[in-house]
Amino acid sequence: MIILGIDPGLAIVGYSVIEYKGSTFIPLEYGAITTDSKALFPDRIKIIYTELLDIIDQYKPEDLAIEELFFNKNVKTAIKVGQARGVEILAAINKGLNIYEYTPLQIKQATVGYGRAEKHQVQEMVKVLLNLKEIPKPDDVADALAVAICHASSLKFKEEFRMK
Amino acid sequence: MIILGIDPGLAIVGYSVIEYKGSTFIPLEYGAITTDSKALFPDRIKIIYTELLDIIDQYKPEDLAIEELFFNKNVKTAIKVGQARGVEILAAINKGLNIYEYTPLQIKQATVGYGRAEKHQVQEMVKVLLNLKEIPKPDDVADALAVAICHASSLKFKEEFRMK
Repeated sequence: MIILGIDPGLAIVGYSVIEYKGSTFIPLEYGAITTDSKALFPDRIKIIYTELLDIIDQYKPEDLAIEELFFNKNVKTAIKVGQARGVEILAAINKGLNIYEYTPLQIKQATVGYGRAEKHQVQEMVKVLLNLKEIPKPDDVADALAVAICHASSLKFKEEFRMK
Repeated sequence: MIILGIDPGLAIVGYSVIEYKGSTFIPLEYGAITTDSKALFPDRIKIIYTELLDIIDQYKPEDLAIEELFFNKNVKTAIKVGQARGVEILAAINKGLNIYEYTPLQIKQATVGYGRAEKHQVQEMVKVLLNLKEIPKPDDVADALAVAICHASSLKFKEEFRMK
């Protein structure tokens, strides 16, 4: 099964495409879609949407695993990044993918084994599980790989994580 | 010139299409796209996106005028409605519209003449300016008409309101 992982964002959208076969993970593609903060907002989300459609067309993933957004304070930022995340989800649903979302806690539990794991531990596990030479950069890419791995590990409990 | 007005939302998206000709406003269409709160979120934004594309195809507006979102407290709601708003903007940019956004203050100033006007005053002005028999319901529809009127009145200052 092929899974698209997304670490949602506006300036940087981390994405990953992994194949889950038997009990192994094969990274097919990973990287970041970046948009210029000086560009108009509508143009930025159009770029994100179009690039995600291209990635989906190329690899034909079945499921999208996307990280949940958490903001404690800055409502303005929450709205802005939320708007971009809506577009990221739309690209996937318009291509017929099933959408699942995971909290940072769930991602840490699925990769490292406990919810209070630190960022660098998650990144190390991503490197090991995917048999990579280095931790992918920027962090958004490693996060996109982590959420895809998290989804693969949760496949038995699929309905539980389906985006409401 | 034909203007699409949107009062952004997830459960209810108010929309309006008005023609601004000479100094008069002709309402071509207005209403609300509603989505079931029990449906899955990705399916809800897909409905909104698809219906907006249909409206744009039918009336071929040149500009989108959309109200800004304000939330003081509930970040969770802000993210959810923000995600829907992103999709609403995407529908317009994917169809080549120019995107403008207005604050409630600007809309009140443009319709009633002062920024502290009350909601029912804005609605009365919408009714009068568009020569309607009744105030359109729900409020989201009246708000969508108001933001389109606001944009028409601001056309001289277009660049100022262009969505950054």
